[in-house]
Amino acid sequence: MRATVLHATRDIRLDDVDAPELREDGDAVVRIVASCICGSDLWPYRGLPEIDGPRRIGHEFVGIVEAVGASVQTVAPGDFVIAPFAFSDNTCIMCQRGVHTSCVQGGFWGSDDRSGHFADGGQGEIVRVPLADGTLVATPEQPDEALVPHLLTLSDVFPTGHHAAVSAGVSAGSTVAVVGDGAVGLSAVLAAKRLGAAKVVAMSRHEDRQRIARAFGADEIVAERGKEGAAAVREILDGIGADQVLECVGTADSMKQAMLSTRPGGRVGYVGVPHGVELNVPAMFGRNVGLVGGVAPARAYIEELLPDVLDGTVTPGQVFDQTLPLDKVADGYQAMDERTSIKTMLSL
Amino acid sequence: MRATVLHATRDIRLDDVDAPELREDGDAVVRIVASCICGSDLWPYRGLPEIDGPRRIGHEFVGIVEAVGASVQTVAPGDFVIAPFAFSDNTCIMCQRGVHTSCVQGGFWGSDDRSGHFADGGQGEIVRVPLADGTLVATPEQPDEALVPHLLTLSDVFPTGHHAAVSAGVSAGSTVAVVGDGAVGLSAVLAAKRLGAAKVVAMSRHEDRQRIARAFGADEIVAERGKEGAAAVREILDGIGADQVLECVGTADSMKQAMLSTRPGGRVGYVGVPHGVELNVPAMFGRNVGLVGGVAPARAYIEELLPDVLDGTVTPGQVFDQTLPLDKVADGYQAMDERTSIKTMLSL
Repeated sequence: MRATVLHATRDIRLDDVDAPELREDGDAVVRIVASCICGSDLWPYRGLPEIDGPRRIGHEFVGIVEAVGASVQTVAPGDFVIAPFAFSDNTCIMCQRGVHTSCVQGGFWGSDDRSGHFADGGQGEIVRVPLADGTLVATPEQPDEALVPHLLTLSDVFPTGHHAAVSAGVSAGSTVAVVGDGAVGLSAVLAAKRLGAAKVVAMSRHEDRQRIARAFGADEIVAERGKEGAAAVREILDGIGADQVLECVGTADSMKQAMLSTRPGGRVGYVGVPHGVELNVPAMFGRNVGLVGGVAPARAYIEELLPDVLDGTVTPGQVFDQTLPLDKVADGYQAMDERTSIKTMLSL
Repeated sequence: MRATVLHATRDIRLDDVDAPELREDGDAVVRIVASCICGSDLWPYRGLPEIDGPRRIGHEFVGIVEAVGASVQTVAPGDFVIAPFAFSDNTCIMCQRGVHTSCVQGGFWGSDDRSGHFADGGQGEIVRVPLADGTLVATPEQPDEALVPHLLTLSDVFPTGHHAAVSAGVSAGSTVAVVGDGAVGLSAVLAAKRLGAAKVVAMSRHEDRQRIARAFGADEIVAERGKEGAAAVREILDGIGADQVLECVGTADSMKQAMLSTRPGGRVGYVGVPHGVELNVPAMFGRNVGLVGGVAPARAYIEELLPDVLDGTVTPGQVFDQTLPLDKVADGYQAMDERTSIKTMLSL
């Protein structure tokens, strides 16, 4: 089968690799229907850090179950399934607490599972799924093709935006600001509105992204960044800043912007993988600004978010502004690297 | 009147000073019945940072109202009142959100208020209270003398422990660890149990403090510190650590100990004034451990906590292991500095 392999910085190819097979009784083999490229895939693509050899990549996909191991009970061949960006047993002490990314048996796509078998990356044709009962969520029936992009966002980007909002405590009547206009930031806008936020300020300088933010329910757009951007947020939100700020970038600058946009007693929900973030703890302490969030336990949220996707209440797939066939995956990386695409879907 | 004045590092005296008078229509003048020494008073006492001249000190007191300004409505001469450690209007946009320490008109004892009048420190005989309607909480009737220490804790130490617990999200069934066995840490144990925590682990090496922690409801005591202490907490709490860890010290070491004692997906509620705290943000992110808290808005909690104090459901005044007359205030500082007293009450 063919799968995406990162060979070196900005050298990404679709290679022929061994087709995965069932290894453990709890495994499933899934033929991918659609996958996509994540902002976090761009870090190794850009050489941060530089990789020391070819590696499989990708962690967001939906597909059709082809085979299951002897003990698998919740999915069956033919099922359309959503795979979260980490595999997990959904039963252990951490999964019970909703922290599936810390599952005692779990792991991440593109690396070995706890049994020492390789779990394929998500940007390919077929994937071996460890802990299939815990990991995969099947839709009640085969979805229309038009639903596929929206269902695909349940792998990562929509639950990640949702995690920022839930972690920070967004609820009915909240005032919210979102730092980051990538696919995660836009999804955070959608998630905040879905949770009942009264006013959401999206921070974006790009017209195409502003348009999606508006479509997702953003009430105001702030184009300024840094201190000026935070001052604009405070001016819009009662002169004090947002109850919750959703930080969806992960840089030192974006975190500062988030902190300055938060009102005293408010919280920053962060889901941008932190790179060089430093916190002014005394300032956070004096203003009672909390920092909550982390790597999103997407699996914990799929059942909650799925019905709204299935019935069209939310259309999170709007974050995909480009769809390419899998063999054009390199073009997809280039487009996202150059920010000419917000998020690229790969179809099979 | 006499009031405590810090003259230089470890040079603290009871001096004769001008008696306070009403300055604004919203003021009250309160004759102090009891005050106390706070762990945070020890920082300037120890010269961290060194002060540049004599200054009044103290911010926890209860007393009897002697006089009120023309506009004061909620307290009257003769009332027994509790003063939180910051004054606030209790009506502004920040107070409405429960962040009274960020009150737009508020301030702290021992410094000028927004009208430019000096607000006396709390370790003296009489205090001018700005924003009396917002700041002071009167008891329904004159309390018995035996209740005074318990009521005095509502100024700071009990609401501060409560703030750690509330910020971290302690609720029915929570597992909790408390870092710090000072009066705040002990109060945090009490607050966590009051909020329904199923299991509270107090971290303390000192028998006298362990005894109070037990009296406040601690289920387990861990005497080890640092990594060993955190490992012991994890072992007691399901092998994973606490849902909430209450950090009541404020040093780099105590924060590390708190972070290591928290389970993935858990939260550290911190109320120890941070001195040199540095956070490992990538580790917090990967484990979904949040940091919430700050300077406690004591005023926000007094009405909630007062009934339980009045009816004896909680006896937070057990943190006072020494009572001295005000003219022995220097002995009180010395005892707390040398940790021979957990917390010293000053009677008048």
